[in-house]
Amino acid sequence: MAISPTGCVFCAVASGDAPAHIVAETDEAFAFLDTRPVFPGHTLVVPRSHLETLADLPALSLAGYFGFVQKVAIAVEAGLTADGTFVAINNKVSHLHTHVVPRRRKDGLRGFFWPRTKYESDDQAADVAKLIRAAM
Amino acid sequence: MAISPTGCVFCAVASGDAPAHIVAETDEAFAFLDTRPVFPGHTLVVPRSHLETLADLPALSLAGYFGFVQKVAIAVEAGLTADGTFVAINNKVSHLHTHVVPRRRKDGLRGFFWPRTKYESDDQAADVAKLIRAAM
Repeated sequence: MAISPTGCVFCAVASGDAPAHIVAETDEAFAFLDTRPVFPGHTLVVPRSHLETLADLPALSLAGYFGFVQKVAIAVEAGLTADGTFVAINNKVSHLHTHVVPRRRKDGLRGFFWPRTKYESDDQAADVAKLIRAAM
Repeated sequence: MAISPTGCVFCAVASGDAPAHIVAETDEAFAFLDTRPVFPGHTLVVPRSHLETLADLPALSLAGYFGFVQKVAIAVEAGLTADGTFVAINNKVSHLHTHVVPRRRKDGLRGFFWPRTKYESDDQAADVAKLIRAAM
């Protein structure tokens, strides 16, 4: 897949330099099929601007971007007669993108499919909560 | 954990009937520690209203809710000196909640940790994209 002068594949899709199956577009974002889907219809929703993570999305863009993610999630579910969707952002230095994955009952991805753990004590949990509260 | 008259645990946390380590609150939403975290600091961001999925979030609430998710993600990363976060919504009939999970390099969750597949052909992908486009 072609990449942009900055080396960003999503910028290359935005500019039309890399091919993609576009499913929807707005002035500020676009949505296209992930080429390596978890399930067919796995879509990526990407702002046209090269924002690195969710933290970089301007306040004025929140409603527009997530309203578009919401519409794409509804369309992925309706268009593919799925039972639901999984919507996820992995925030690392990249070009911000939101995954929208169609889900079906008995699709083999049981709810959250990552290892759950427990706090050693309620005090440990309280300490962790305090650290986050202090950073808000 | 106590549940609300409607049987919803998140409504019970919202009303104060179920205990939780709250990390942040607004008039419309609150954030608290998941009791079975993927990693310590795994936080759930929940609207006070019993909305079932992302599709039910009113347009006027998008900026407020996702601005709050954004702030929580920034605080989870900063407060716990993590390297990033994973932000996810599993849309099934429930009480809408967004997971914010701190991520660290070599934390064992390699990027996306679910099985990737491929389209059998570009035509197959084009057909799937068409179904979603038609539902937008």
